[in-house]
Amino acid sequence: MAAITQEALKWISEEYYDLNGSHYETLESLPSPLEFSQLVHCACPKALARWTDEYLAKACGDNLISVALTPNGRADAITRGPDDRLYFAEPFVRQMTVADFLSKISTDRDAQEEVVYLQSQDGNLYSSTPGVDSEFESLLTDVPPQLSFCTEALGAPPEAVNLWIGDSRSVTSIHSDPYENIYTVIRGSKTFTVFPPTEGWCMNERVYPHAAYERLVEGEPLILVASPPSNPPVRWSSIQDPNDANVLPPEAHPIHITVNAGESLYLPAGWWHYVTQSEVTIAVNYWYDMESRGSGWVWLNLLRGGDSNSPPPGNEGDEFVDGSEEDEEEQEESAGN
Amino acid sequence: MAAITQEALKWISEEYYDLNGSHYETLESLPSPLEFSQLVHCACPKALARWTDEYLAKACGDNLISVALTPNGRADAITRGPDDRLYFAEPFVRQMTVADFLSKISTDRDAQEEVVYLQSQDGNLYSSTPGVDSEFESLLTDVPPQLSFCTEALGAPPEAVNLWIGDSRSVTSIHSDPYENIYTVIRGSKTFTVFPPTEGWCMNERVYPHAAYERLVEGEPLILVASPPSNPPVRWSSIQDPNDANVLPPEAHPIHITVNAGESLYLPAGWWHYVTQSEVTIAVNYWYDMESRGSGWVWLNLLRGGDSNSPPPGNEGDEFVDGSEEDEEEQEESAGN
Repeated sequence: MAAITQEALKWISEEYYDLNGSHYETLESLPSPLEFSQLVHCACPKALARWTDEYLAKACGDNLISVALTPNGRADAITRGPDDRLYFAEPFVRQMTVADFLSKISTDRDAQEEVVYLQSQDGNLYSSTPGVDSEFESLLTDVPPQLSFCTEALGAPPEAVNLWIGDSRSVTSIHSDPYENIYTVIRGSKTFTVFPPTEGWCMNERVYPHAAYERLVEGEPLILVASPPSNPPVRWSSIQDPNDANVLPPEAHPIHITVNAGESLYLPAGWWHYVTQSEVTIAVNYWYDMESRGSGWVWLNLLRGGDSNSPPPGNEGDEFVDGSEEDEEEQEESAGN
Repeated sequence: MAAITQEALKWISEEYYDLNGSHYETLESLPSPLEFSQLVHCACPKALARWTDEYLAKACGDNLISVALTPNGRADAITRGPDDRLYFAEPFVRQMTVADFLSKISTDRDAQEEVVYLQSQDGNLYSSTPGVDSEFESLLTDVPPQLSFCTEALGAPPEAVNLWIGDSRSVTSIHSDPYENIYTVIRGSKTFTVFPPTEGWCMNERVYPHAAYERLVEGEPLILVASPPSNPPVRWSSIQDPNDANVLPPEAHPIHITVNAGESLYLPAGWWHYVTQSEVTIAVNYWYDMESRGSGWVWLNLLRGGDSNSPPPGNEGDEFVDGSEEDEEEQEESAGN
C-alpha cells in the first residue's frame, strides 16, 4: 500500500479540475485514428435502426442467451443481504430465448416482476478469448467486430464487444474499468454520470464480501446468498447514487452525458461512471485494452490509493454511503456498463 | 504543497519501473503522425552533412550570434560561488560571429580558455513568439521549421527550434522540461542519461539562489556574481553527475542513449536528462508544447512533489549531492539541452 494520503489525492483532483474543468466535446463525424489517438473523449454517430423487437426475436430464434436476474435491478452492486450485512451482489443468470427476454422488458410489466438485464459483459458479441462463442451469431452481420479508427489508434482489436439490453429498472452502480470504452446506443437513451480518475478518492471504495442471487426453489423469489470464502471480497464504491446531493464531497465534479440512439460515447479508461437508462434501451460497447506502456496504469492505481488489490486502510466493508438510510431499499443500482 | 510523501513517490517509481523497465526503441524510418502519437520515445534519422565549419562561417558571415561563456562548461548549473555558497549559475552571454565562435571550439584550444557554447534555447532558429527574429537567417533554408509527423500528431507547430553547437567541455546538468523534445544530432554525438518522470524524487531538487557570470573588467576572467533579490531562486536538481555511482538511490534506473550524427531522439516531456557530448557537436532540437488537456501536467507536477513553484519542505538550498566533494571543481555541468 502506497503512502498516498487523502490530502494528496484531494490536491490531485483539484489540480486536474482547475486545468480541465467538466466540459466534454461532441464530434459530428467519426474521428480519424490520429484524431482519436489525440482525444480524451468523443461522441460519434452510429445507428442500427432495424433492431426492432421483432427483428431481434426472429434473427435469434431458439438460441438461448444468458440473462441477469435480480429482484431490484441491482446486478453487480452493493446490496444489503437477508442477514443485514452489505454484499457485492452478482445477479442470478438464466438462459432464455431473445423473444422470452424481450417480453420481460416490455413496458406493461408487473411491478413485482424480477428485473432482467442482458449485460453479460464477457464479449457476448465478440470476444478476444479463444473458444468463446457468441450467443448472438445471427446478429453479428449487423455489428462490426471492431471500430477501425479505434483499432488503428490503439494498435489492437477490441478485447470484447458487448450487447446490452435492459429497461429503466436497471441502473449501473458507479465504478471504473481499465478499458477504453466506445459505447453506442442503438435504441432508447443512456445517461452517464461520469467523474475523472482524479476524483476516485471521492468514491469511497470499500471491500465487501461477495454474494450472488440464487433461486433455491423453482417458482420462489430470488434470495441473496453469501458466497463461500473461496470467492475473494470485492473492492467497490460505497456510493449508492452519485446524483444524491448528500453523498459526494464538494470537490467532486460530476459530468452528465445523455447518449441517445445513434450516438456514441468515448469513455476513457479509468473514468468513473454511473448509468441510468430509458425504457427499453439497446446498446453495443467496444472495450479496448488501455495502453500498457508508460505511466497510465501506475497513475490510475495511485488514484485508487495505490494498490487496487488490497483494501484501503481502515475499511472493513459494511459501510455504505447513502443520502438517506431509509430510502436505501427504494434506490436501484445494477450491472457494469 | 501536496502531502505527497517520499514513500508514495518511491512506490510510484517502482511500479512504473516494474511495468516499463529501461528499454528504448530505435526506429529505422520516420513514424507516421499516428505512430508518433502512440509512441513514448523514438529515434529517427536526419542529416545535414553539409554543415562544415567552412559552410557555417560563410553562410552566417558577419551576423552576430549570442554565445554562452563560462569558465568551466557549466551554464545553467549549480555552481559554488566565490563566497563558497551554491548558486544556480547562468552563463555570461557575448555576441560574436560564427567564424569567431567556431575558432573557440576547435580542438587545439588552450586548456585555460573559457568555454563557449551556443545554447541560447530561445528558439534561435525559429520561435513561436512574435517579433523574435532568428540569429541564423541564412541557415533556415537548411532546417525545416517543423517536423510534419510531430506537428500533426501534437496538433500545433513547435514552440521553439534551437541550434546547439559546443564541445566536450560543456555538459548539461540534469533537469526536465515541460516540452516534447525531438533532438537531432548533425555532427558529433551526444550521450543522454535519462530517467522517467517517476524517478524525479531521486533527483533531490533544492532551491538555489540565482547568480550569473560577469566580466567586470574587460580582459579579466569571468566571476560568478549573486543576482539581486528580484531574481527568484531556482529549483534545480542537486545531483552533480547522475553517472557517479554514489549519488543516486538504488531505485533510480538510468537509461543511456548515444545519439550520433544523422540520428534523432524523442525525449518525452518531463523526462530527466543529463547530456554530455563529443568534440564539436552540432544539434538541432524541436520543442513542442506538451498536451495540456487531461492529467499529464498534474502527474508531472505530482512527481516533483506536488508544486513546482514552491520549494520542497526542508530544503533551504546550499546542499549539493556530489559523489566526492574534493572532485567537485573538476566535474563539468552546463546548459539545458
